[in-house]
Amino acid sequence: MAKKRSKKFQKKIGQVPGTVIYTGEKSTRDLFIEVFNYDKDNYIEKNFSNVDECFDFRQSNTVTWINLNGLNHVSQIEKIGEHFSIHPLVLEDIVNISQRPKIDIYDDYLFVVVKMLYYDTNEKIISEQVSLVLGENYVLSFQEAEGDVFDSLRDRIRNAQGRIRTQQADYLLYALMDAVVDHYFNIIEILSDKIEDFETDIFSGNVHEHFNKDIQDLKREILRVRRAIFPIREVISRIEKHESPLINKKTIAYYRDIYDHLIQVAENIDIYREMIWSLMDMYMTSISNKMNEVMKVLTIMASIFIPLTFIAGIYGMNFDYIPELRYKYAYFILWGVLIVIFVALLWFFKRKKWL
Amino acid sequence: MAKKRSKKFQKKIGQVPGTVIYTGEKSTRDLFIEVFNYDKDNYIEKNFSNVDECFDFRQSNTVTWINLNGLNHVSQIEKIGEHFSIHPLVLEDIVNISQRPKIDIYDDYLFVVVKMLYYDTNEKIISEQVSLVLGENYVLSFQEAEGDVFDSLRDRIRNAQGRIRTQQADYLLYALMDAVVDHYFNIIEILSDKIEDFETDIFSGNVHEHFNKDIQDLKREILRVRRAIFPIREVISRIEKHESPLINKKTIAYYRDIYDHLIQVAENIDIYREMIWSLMDMYMTSISNKMNEVMKVLTIMASIFIPLTFIAGIYGMNFDYIPELRYKYAYFILWGVLIVIFVALLWFFKRKKWL
Amino acid sequence: MAKKRSKKFQKKIGQVPGTVIYTGEKSTRDLFIEVFNYDKDNYIEKNFSNVDECFDFRQSNTVTWINLNGLNHVSQIEKIGEHFSIHPLVLEDIVNISQRPKIDIYDDYLFVVVKMLYYDTNEKIISEQVSLVLGENYVLSFQEAEGDVFDSLRDRIRNAQGRIRTQQADYLLYALMDAVVDHYFNIIEILSDKIEDFETDIFSGNVHEHFNKDIQDLKREILRVRRAIFPIREVISRIEKHESPLINKKTIAYYRDIYDHLIQVAENIDIYREMIWSLMDMYMTSISNKMNEVMKVLTIMASIFIPLTFIAGIYGMNFDYIPELRYKYAYFILWGVLIVIFVALLWFFKRKKWL
Amino acid sequence: MAKKRSKKFQKKIGQVPGTVIYTGEKSTRDLFIEVFNYDKDNYIEKNFSNVDECFDFRQSNTVTWINLNGLNHVSQIEKIGEHFSIHPLVLEDIVNISQRPKIDIYDDYLFVVVKMLYYDTNEKIISEQVSLVLGENYVLSFQEAEGDVFDSLRDRIRNAQGRIRTQQADYLLYALMDAVVDHYFNIIEILSDKIEDFETDIFSGNVHEHFNKDIQDLKREILRVRRAIFPIREVISRIEKHESPLINKKTIAYYRDIYDHLIQVAENIDIYREMIWSLMDMYMTSISNKMNEVMKVLTIMASIFIPLTFIAGIYGMNFDYIPELRYKYAYFILWGVLIVIFVALLWFFKRKKWL
Amino acid sequence: MAKKRSKKFQKKIGQVPGTVIYTGEKSTRDLFIEVFNYDKDNYIEKNFSNVDECFDFRQSNTVTWINLNGLNHVSQIEKIGEHFSIHPLVLEDIVNISQRPKIDIYDDYLFVVVKMLYYDTNEKIISEQVSLVLGENYVLSFQEAEGDVFDSLRDRIRNAQGRIRTQQADYLLYALMDAVVDHYFNIIEILSDKIEDFETDIFSGNVHEHFNKDIQDLKREILRVRRAIFPIREVISRIEKHESPLINKKTIAYYRDIYDHLIQVAENIDIYREMIWSLMDMYMTSISNKMNEVMKVLTIMASIFIPLTFIAGIYGMNFDYIPELRYKYAYFILWGVLIVIFVALLWFFKRKKWL
Repeated sequence: MAKKRSKKFQKKIGQVPGTVIYTGEKSTRDLFIEVFNYDKDNYIEKNFSNVDECFDFRQSNTVTWINLNGLNHVSQIEKIGEHFSIHPLVLEDIVNISQRPKIDIYDDYLFVVVKMLYYDTNEKIISEQVSLVLGENYVLSFQEAEGDVFDSLRDRIRNAQGRIRTQQADYLLYALMDAVVDHYFNIIEILSDKIEDFETDIFSGNVHEHFNKDIQDLKREILRVRRAIFPIREVISRIEKHESPLINKKTIAYYRDIYDHLIQVAENIDIYREMIWSLMDMYMTSISNKMNEVMKVLTIMASIFIPLTFIAGIYGMNFDYIPELRYKYAYFILWGVLIVIFVALLWFFKRKKWL
Repeated sequence: MAKKRSKKFQKKIGQVPGTVIYTGEKSTRDLFIEVFNYDKDNYIEKNFSNVDECFDFRQSNTVTWINLNGLNHVSQIEKIGEHFSIHPLVLEDIVNISQRPKIDIYDDYLFVVVKMLYYDTNEKIISEQVSLVLGENYVLSFQEAEGDVFDSLRDRIRNAQGRIRTQQADYLLYALMDAVVDHYFNIIEILSDKIEDFETDIFSGNVHEHFNKDIQDLKREILRVRRAIFPIREVISRIEKHESPLINKKTIAYYRDIYDHLIQVAENIDIYREMIWSLMDMYMTSISNKMNEVMKVLTIMASIFIPLTFIAGIYGMNFDYIPELRYKYAYFILWGVLIVIFVALLWFFKRKKWL
Repeated sequence: MAKKRSKKFQKKIGQVPGTVIYTGEKSTRDLFIEVFNYDKDNYIEKNFSNVDECFDFRQSNTVTWINLNGLNHVSQIEKIGEHFSIHPLVLEDIVNISQRPKIDIYDDYLFVVVKMLYYDTNEKIISEQVSLVLGENYVLSFQEAEGDVFDSLRDRIRNAQGRIRTQQADYLLYALMDAVVDHYFNIIEILSDKIEDFETDIFSGNVHEHFNKDIQDLKREILRVRRAIFPIREVISRIEKHESPLINKKTIAYYRDIYDHLIQVAENIDIYREMIWSLMDMYMTSISNKMNEVMKVLTIMASIFIPLTFIAGIYGMNFDYIPELRYKYAYFILWGVLIVIFVALLWFFKRKKWL
Repeated sequence: MAKKRSKKFQKKIGQVPGTVIYTGEKSTRDLFIEVFNYDKDNYIEKNFSNVDECFDFRQSNTVTWINLNGLNHVSQIEKIGEHFSIHPLVLEDIVNISQRPKIDIYDDYLFVVVKMLYYDTNEKIISEQVSLVLGENYVLSFQEAEGDVFDSLRDRIRNAQGRIRTQQADYLLYALMDAVVDHYFNIIEILSDKIEDFETDIFSGNVHEHFNKDIQDLKREILRVRRAIFPIREVISRIEKHESPLINKKTIAYYRDIYDHLIQVAENIDIYREMIWSLMDMYMTSISNKMNEVMKVLTIMASIFIPLTFIAGIYGMNFDYIPELRYKYAYFILWGVLIVIFVALLWFFKRKKWL
Repeated sequence: MAKKRSKKFQKKIGQVPGTVIYTGEKSTRDLFIEVFNYDKDNYIEKNFSNVDECFDFRQSNTVTWINLNGLNHVSQIEKIGEHFSIHPLVLEDIVNISQRPKIDIYDDYLFVVVKMLYYDTNEKIISEQVSLVLGENYVLSFQEAEGDVFDSLRDRIRNAQGRIRTQQADYLLYALMDAVVDHYFNIIEILSDKIEDFETDIFSGNVHEHFNKDIQDLKREILRVRRAIFPIREVISRIEKHESPLINKKTIAYYRDIYDHLIQVAENIDIYREMIWSLMDMYMTSISNKMNEVMKVLTIMASIFIPLTFIAGIYGMNFDYIPELRYKYAYFILWGVLIVIFVALLWFFKRKKWL
């Protein structure tokens, strides 16, 4: 059991608060740092494998996006933290991948944690933590590994598509969060399909052995997605309300747009949740219905043939004196009686709508 | 599966925010624009198929209602947006038909999204998005397709019936929303009928094969209606509270009236929801009751005839020495015994109220 | 279906807002108007059948109560509305009998809608709408038909009993609402009795055929009462808070008293609701218990006699050589064996506590 | 039915508001008045049977506690009310024993209603209303009958134990409420024991006939306790917040202490409630489990002996030509076959874990 | 029963408020007092068995942590209380081990109660109360017995590890609470494992006899953990908001970190709770599924052999004239018929998917 446990909550008990310890799976992944530096007219894109090299890019009149992949490189992250004077607790949260989505508002920067959700090839939900730090004219993003949902954003920066190049760092933060939230629609579509598949299975009576387990797994999946998505609503509404000087008033309309999407996603998830409960009920009902059917077959068969067998038993008795036995047409008359009883019982069950 | 999904959430992932992309079904429907321009004494009504033509009608001393049908004509909508200086995010929301009912309050205009609900000929609920923009002296309305719930409103403008011609644009917005909300009563009446039909079916034992599925469909329908209607309450209460200069204080009483209707609709929907859950329980109970009845028949038949058959079996044995067999009246006595047992068991079941 | 629907929500779709249309059942009931005009020392009571006659009674230094029965006389109501300068939306609400309890606070008057609940002779709940308008020194009350819960109040005015004659119009409004709310205790008592009857039925196993339907009806009844009563709490708390100049500070203690009663009623209703759900569970359990009992009888009968029948069957076989058959006491020994098996099985079921 | 009802809600319909009418059971109990008058150094304790005599004790520099037993002596209570200028609605509430716990804050005094709960000798919960009025330097308490939870408080006053004698009237009010709330722990302990007893019964399968009814009774008991206890939390928090001049700031810490106890009691009650629901589920499950067991016995017995009986039936047939019948060892071979089938079926059920 | 009760709520009824009475199990455990006194550069650690000796350590420029084990030494605790001028109600709460987690904010100190949770060797949850008092430059902690979760904190003080030695007493309070909360992750991991074990058991059909009881125990365990953990959220948020002068603004970020952990724990607990309910449903469903299987076996066996037995019974009759009996191949033909019926019924059940 001890071994099983060790994976879930990696916060080391008794660890000094503010210690920056990576809680994900140990890996030898290389550090990969992307830097985008742009303003309306120019943009530079560089890749590094060492944080020191990227510090030059921070200038006051351009927007700098430093995207770091590989949370296992703790010392490098501490170096960044020092350079941008980020609170040790923030660094601890960045590398603690079981962090809950949240926002911490410091004087000089905002710290936002969100969860990137996607289905892997086995149709299992993968949740990857993305930490975002918004400063005066820069955004830092931290991801566990390469591969993310930001490709279209990169293109928009490269091609000066949309508003991105004309806006400040607060818009860049919005664009990153928007990309994450947009992907949630993907998730809820797959969830919706899964629920529909369950429904179809139940209604077609085509319920396989692991149905109970699968439905429980789906319920847990929905709970996990819920947990990843719901707290972000509060993140956004604190951005809207707090009016940190780092967020321009004009950008807030965009954040409100994310908020609308989140509400839409959240509503869907709650509906799915209710539908899962309802599916359980349906399943229970369908089991009972089946049992009813089984019982009816049994009842009909037994109720028809047990009395008939009784009658046959009567005339199998060896009493010396049973007058009917001597009568020549008795056997045929008996058959008549049996058939009458048979038909009468059939009619009885028919009237009860059991047939 | 991929194909199935593509219909539900058409927000393109990775799309530049503020891009105006129609998310409904592609269609070749023509653009159809209606313009009403009126004040107390005069009114003009014109139809166009091109937005440029309708811009002349906007004057400061009359109320102008521009009703646009055909959200697939994205470029025309963008032209309108430009002319009335509407924020790109608003235009994106107008053509994104999976938008949630909401209000966005800008300095120069209000943007309201509501859902027009009606049953189609197959008794399926159709939800059509209506976007409304209230400006200084105009209201823009955007609908997916022709055909709506505003005919009586048009007549009132034409005939100067009621207050409409003597009021400002804020009253026109109210009148449009009121027409939408009034139709919800239609919906809840049909829902109420459907629930009553289910009840009657359950209580009369007349439950067809797809009952489970139908009840699940109804539940989903109620959830959908709920989702379309509930957020509008917040829309109205923000109109009441915010006191945007575009809404006159005197008109607020009218909005409060819509609010009352919405509360009434919402209450009904919540009652229906509870009744559906309760119907499920009733259904479950009725299944169990039926099984009980089936079991009783089986038990009565088996419990009566199995012992009798046993007795008949005894006297069918071929032992050389069974004294009863030789006795002349044994057979008739046996019949007496069998009948006594039969009657006793019947009486037993009668006393247990199983008969 | 269309016909069935037409009764429930009479708000005409597309109707001009503020149109005063009676939504109750059409009737030819006569208009009946009562007027009470009183101060500390004097009181006048008059009955009319025409509103014009009652306008003289409004004076600044006495309290006037105009009680109008017969909402079908729409034009008369409009005349009153005009005389007291009441907003058209208020008049529309007065005659729309599916109105939800609410309060609208206007500058010159308060408009309150409450529901008068009572059981008719068939033990069905009747809900009658009472609209109340409190002005400077008058109260208007509007009822669908004659017959109400205000008789004791009338007596108190006539006999100068209690404080009523020494108080202002705000106290009269209180007294009217108090009379309505007092009657709710009646309702919840009957509900309580009905629930107890159900319980007794379930526990005594005396469950008739329509049990399922009756319990569903009761649930719906409770939901309806809830809907009539719960919103009034908000009405009162808005009266308490808003401190409209029409309500004297000293009278608020009395309104708080109504509030306490409403909370008490509301608590009871919620308890009844929970108990109904719990009754459903009990009922389900009792069905299962019964099935258990049925199954036990079947199992005992079948398990005892099927093996015995088998043994009898063995010795009914016609093999040429079955040594036991020839033995003289075989038959009696067999009976011994059968009885031993019989007793052993009985003992087995006894030990399992099935007997 | 009418008779049954008359006990529950004694508020007379149509009664003049502020009329002081005792709603408890009519009784001829004598009035019993206790007066404690104390300060740091002295204390006087007197008993009376008439309120007039106790008015002298009210002095400005000592604390006076007047404890009145016997709410049926309405006129005496009215006399007290007059003497201390208490609002008629308060007096009405004092003698209306179906009052909900609440606080009314008047300018000169606080009015608090709480419920004293205890189990009678039949283990039924008795709820007795205690009304408390806190004035400048006095506390009035009103109880239905003699016998209460205040004995230890009396001792503390007599013996100058604890802080009581050095404190003002607001501390006395606290001490009274504290005594009442302390007794709730008694109640929840008994409830806890009852639930445990139910659990033990279910798990030991030792479920008597009235189980369903008893569990329903317990549920109702919990609902009643809940209703008596929960509103007091609001009473306390209003005392804490309102900062009526009658409550010294230093005493508030004590009230907060009651609040903590109430939260603890309330939490327990909610847990019990959830556990009761869960017990119902357990019970349902245990019924199903039992039915399963019954069914297994039936299935095993029937499935084993029905095929065997069939085989015996075959060789009981009277065909002229059945070759096996003539074979000498056929009978013994048949027994072998029967035993093989018997063992095979046993093994089959064993493998299915039904045995 | 009386004996059973005496353990749960030890608050003595009628006890003088502010009386310091230990409510845990009586024990003869010795008092054990640890004192840590440190600043940036120095630290002293001493152990005592008498409170008097530890008072010298309180100085204004160092942080003092006095950790007292052994709540049964009430008089010693009162002595401490006197020395640090702590309110008697606080002392009462310290030794009342059924206290709910809470914070009381006094002018000179904060009083915090939390629950230390851990599993004992029998996998039962032990909850130990830890009371913390934060004063100007000291923290007092009170524990029932030796053995706690603070060892790593002690090491950090000794080795000047992390920030602890450079911070004030408010950070020490944080560090203590953090250590307690960190241990909760342990608890929820074990809970999570237990739930998974239940699931595995249900899905593998490997449900032992006490399943019902075990699941109920787990539910109760979760309720208890919930009750211990949830109120701490309010404690923290009051620390954050209240901005008592004892908490430095810079330390609040650390408290917020605890808050995040608590939310995470709380979310998990709520998910576990929902999953337990869902497990109950699964269990119920699995019982029904099993019964279905049992019924199918019975139905198949009975439905096949009862008709066959009937046929055999027919030809066991002793009528003088049954023509078939005389036909030479009749017996073999009959076997053919029996086999045909047997196969047909098998095919019938196969088609119904019961086989």
